[in-house]
Amino acid sequence: MNWQKRTAKCGEISLSDVGNEVIINGWADSVRNMGGMIFFDVRDRYGLVQAVIEPENQKELANRAKELRSEFVVWIKGNVRNRENPNPNIPTGMVEILVSDFGIINKAEVPPFEIKDDIGTNEEIKLRYRYLDLRRSIMQKYMLTRNKVYQIAHLYFYDNDFVEIETPVLMKSTPEGARDFLVPSRINQGKFYALPQSPQIFKQILMVSGYDRYMQIVKCFRDEDLRSDRQPEFTQIDVEMSFVEQDDVFSVTEGFFVKLWKEVLGYDLAEPFQKMSYEEAMTRFGSDKPDLRFGMEIVNITDIVKNAEFKVFSEVIASNGLIGLINAKGCASYSRKQIDELTEFAKKYGAKGLAYIKILPNGEINSPIAKFLTQEETGNIIKAANAEDGDLLLISSDKKYRALTILGALRIEIAKRSGILDSVKDKFSFHWVVDFPLFDYDEESNRYVAMHHPFTSPKEEDIELLDASPAQARAKAYDLVVNGAELGGGSIRIHQEDVQKKMFSLMGMSDETAEAKFGFLLKALKYGAPPHGGIALGLDRIVMTLTGTENIRDVIAFPKTTTGLSLLDGSPSEVDSEQLSELGISLALKEE
Amino acid sequence: MNWQKRTAKCGEISLSDVGNEVIINGWADSVRNMGGMIFFDVRDRYGLVQAVIEPENQKELANRAKELRSEFVVWIKGNVRNRENPNPNIPTGMVEILVSDFGIINKAEVPPFEIKDDIGTNEEIKLRYRYLDLRRSIMQKYMLTRNKVYQIAHLYFYDNDFVEIETPVLMKSTPEGARDFLVPSRINQGKFYALPQSPQIFKQILMVSGYDRYMQIVKCFRDEDLRSDRQPEFTQIDVEMSFVEQDDVFSVTEGFFVKLWKEVLGYDLAEPFQKMSYEEAMTRFGSDKPDLRFGMEIVNITDIVKNAEFKVFSEVIASNGLIGLINAKGCASYSRKQIDELTEFAKKYGAKGLAYIKILPNGEINSPIAKFLTQEETGNIIKAANAEDGDLLLISSDKKYRALTILGALRIEIAKRSGILDSVKDKFSFHWVVDFPLFDYDEESNRYVAMHHPFTSPKEEDIELLDASPAQARAKAYDLVVNGAELGGGSIRIHQEDVQKKMFSLMGMSDETAEAKFGFLLKALKYGAPPHGGIALGLDRIVMTLTGTENIRDVIAFPKTTTGLSLLDGSPSEVDSEQLSELGISLALKEE
Repeated sequence: MNWQKRTAKCGEISLSDVGNEVIINGWADSVRNMGGMIFFDVRDRYGLVQAVIEPENQKELANRAKELRSEFVVWIKGNVRNRENPNPNIPTGMVEILVSDFGIINKAEVPPFEIKDDIGTNEEIKLRYRYLDLRRSIMQKYMLTRNKVYQIAHLYFYDNDFVEIETPVLMKSTPEGARDFLVPSRINQGKFYALPQSPQIFKQILMVSGYDRYMQIVKCFRDEDLRSDRQPEFTQIDVEMSFVEQDDVFSVTEGFFVKLWKEVLGYDLAEPFQKMSYEEAMTRFGSDKPDLRFGMEIVNITDIVKNAEFKVFSEVIASNGLIGLINAKGCASYSRKQIDELTEFAKKYGAKGLAYIKILPNGEINSPIAKFLTQEETGNIIKAANAEDGDLLLISSDKKYRALTILGALRIEIAKRSGILDSVKDKFSFHWVVDFPLFDYDEESNRYVAMHHPFTSPKEEDIELLDASPAQARAKAYDLVVNGAELGGGSIRIHQEDVQKKMFSLMGMSDETAEAKFGFLLKALKYGAPPHGGIALGLDRIVMTLTGTENIRDVIAFPKTTTGLSLLDGSPSEVDSEQLSELGISLALKEE
Repeated sequence: MNWQKRTAKCGEISLSDVGNEVIINGWADSVRNMGGMIFFDVRDRYGLVQAVIEPENQKELANRAKELRSEFVVWIKGNVRNRENPNPNIPTGMVEILVSDFGIINKAEVPPFEIKDDIGTNEEIKLRYRYLDLRRSIMQKYMLTRNKVYQIAHLYFYDNDFVEIETPVLMKSTPEGARDFLVPSRINQGKFYALPQSPQIFKQILMVSGYDRYMQIVKCFRDEDLRSDRQPEFTQIDVEMSFVEQDDVFSVTEGFFVKLWKEVLGYDLAEPFQKMSYEEAMTRFGSDKPDLRFGMEIVNITDIVKNAEFKVFSEVIASNGLIGLINAKGCASYSRKQIDELTEFAKKYGAKGLAYIKILPNGEINSPIAKFLTQEETGNIIKAANAEDGDLLLISSDKKYRALTILGALRIEIAKRSGILDSVKDKFSFHWVVDFPLFDYDEESNRYVAMHHPFTSPKEEDIELLDASPAQARAKAYDLVVNGAELGGGSIRIHQEDVQKKMFSLMGMSDETAEAKFGFLLKALKYGAPPHGGIALGLDRIVMTLTGTENIRDVIAFPKTTTGLSLLDGSPSEVDSEQLSELGISLALKEE
């Protein structure tokens, strides 16, 4: 061994060590030759400490130190002493180590970017050199916060009688197979496993098995075209409970978040979390994950303008649509260009255009639709919007949920632009969205699809709606929302075989298909399935919320790019044809 | 909701509840109609309790109870009272619940096997109905023990400054690619991810990243022809540390096992664990994972018989082989048939035959090879073997390590047959096997392969052997062995780029291949890699050892069969060609 093992950690050396000899191991951080003294910091996971060589008295050391460069791995022996110029910004800033001996354990090439927090380096380089990127203290903070989340979760659920059970990674390809990652089987050629999109069915089977309370921190996989906030593999805190109703799942989940926020951030969350129905969330905030840290609620003006002589409005009203607005306080000064940007923004959500009413500071009205409205109508709109001089009303008229969604998106956009989001950034507003519709109607395939998933129980009082008007039926499904982001979702599941079959059939699934895909679940439900429900919490998103980053790749040690590449190891990669032939498959690339 | 939610858990009702009304939820266990009383147990994860209906006073209830069958899910309301005939075998045996109301929450078909511990049912049926199998209390014990292992591991490593970090499941296909499960990429057609055989390289990269101490409980995958104790997906407790030597890894690992054995079994393990070199383990016990709970060590008699006029021996000696024996105490009475069985057994390990010497109770010698030995030689053999009247000496002569391996296997077999293993079954003998050879010579491919893995550091004092005689070089590799089974293994890794390159080249890997496969690791080693090492512990095997089961499928909630099938969900399964075409692959089944 050509190095001396540490007796102390860099970040933990303090005034109480003054006078003692220590050995530290770590990375040289910034080597400075200043006024005849050689200073360098030595960094390990626990922090950094300053080392000093005095060339006047330490010729040999000083000579050897010439070789030292940033990111070299070193061992340092020396005496801890008080620092002449304390640095109050770091925990070890009162002391330094006067080097009595040291050695270079391993050299380092000059890194392609500096190991510090605010670097402009493009993300591709950082991902390629992830081992260097992960040395930055901000990345370390993300990873250590993530570690805390794991540990608090392990402990909390264990203390609450949950059993950690591993579900399989190699499982059957099921429902929306298109999103499954497939794994060819070598032993059973021509057959494939799938990676789980979630352990949903297995956790339900564990309830049928009597495990009562299950939890697992588990990797899930989805082979989707990736958005910037998605990863092909992501992590869930997966929870399931027997003999429960919605409120039982809520209180267990809330207890976890209260503990998490307290222990990680010292922040007190109020219990119980607020509940809001899907319908209310959509109506008031135009989103099923509303940000409740601020108001700017949607105002429905359909009634006010129902007699207006404006074709756009009257057509929408005739087809049972909705006309609504949000009041962008103080935004009457928005320029033509800004309004155009907002119009383009609204179009992304399906808007055909964007009407507005500016109430100028002098009280004058500026609006391209004013001419279609009576003065009384305009007055009533302004009154309903609670608008004052200087406000900007953004109006959407469309099919009900589309209009609401457009206004909901504009609400967030305005909050961003006007600094509202910034002003509430240290607040956390947790709440439940409940009573989701059971079904979504998929116009493309012309059938109902489960809004949550097909194992979600309908509300008892809506079961009679299933045949006559499935679209009205509500589910025992819920999402946990914080600050406009969904942290997780779950439901009370179907525990009766007949209801489950009915559900499949309403989704247009034949008995044969249901049996082929989900036969093993249907069978399990025949052998004494207890009522059960649960939730899946997005761990990546939780860590993002706790640390305040908006980049999901910041909170995953080895993430993929938005095109599914790992720039560090170069996966996915080509494999040789012999390996494929072993698996009984060959390439059949599409011509593009 | 057509059921009443529990106010108590079945297994937790005690004398202190007598006189109270409780509601329980669970599974009806065994419904008995006895002497005018209806008894049935209600079971949940926490235990079971007896419920009773008195038809004389409870006509309506008794009538409804006729419908009750085992495994029905029920809610029961009633008063806790003292039991007339206490059952001391269960924790709730002093009390029972006099039912005042109850309901059937869900019915159950008659299970294909009884839900009790000792069932002869074949494993295939049990795996197909895993949800019923998992209800058996023995299976629950396995799962709950496994849960304890997780929790103790989480806590222990966290307390010791380890950071839990997730490594990717979708990674690059590397070294022995034939064992990789591949995952075709849809977005990057023609390219494949591989599932990790271990997170080895990623955990090393985390050390390069400065995380100092890493742990993860992680699924690993190996697409091998399965043996009965292997699974295609298995779980490791994966650990890596920086700035350490072998002893540091040992003491952290030992601390974990001491805690684990104490908390799960109340068993005190002595620290530090014994260490034994690979060479010593092979020489004395004929195994690199010797069971040290009993003696029966190998006796090397090469010297004693070196002049014997026996061709089999003299040929072995001429080619530097080894002649050794084990003393099967008291087994001289073995029949011809038993000896034949042992001979067949030895052949599985490469033996051509099996020589033996019986020392009959009357002191006579019975041995097919006696005629080739002088009386003095036979006497010296008996003396060296410490043999007494009634003993059986089993002799192997072969290439050194083959002879040792054969004797090692016979040692275990004799220990099984003679009841020795049974007599030590409550003992645990933990020890380290160290100083493994760096390389194995693979006669098939005519090259050296890494015995542990190619990232394992050679011992400093053996580095000079690398060029001249690689076969002699020893590695900083170690296995943790208990009772003849390997619980884990690890090594100090190579942290210098040049040594790593040398290692690859000694394995016959060209620079280009090394770069293509491991370029990202080689590059990482250039940027300041600290000395590091670690261990991977087999979680499945640990739970098997703690619970005493020899069936790996007992300790995995949803295991695969030895042909890689999941009988529960029917995976792997065929997928439709459209799905394959999306992935850019097609079937190319081999004709068999």
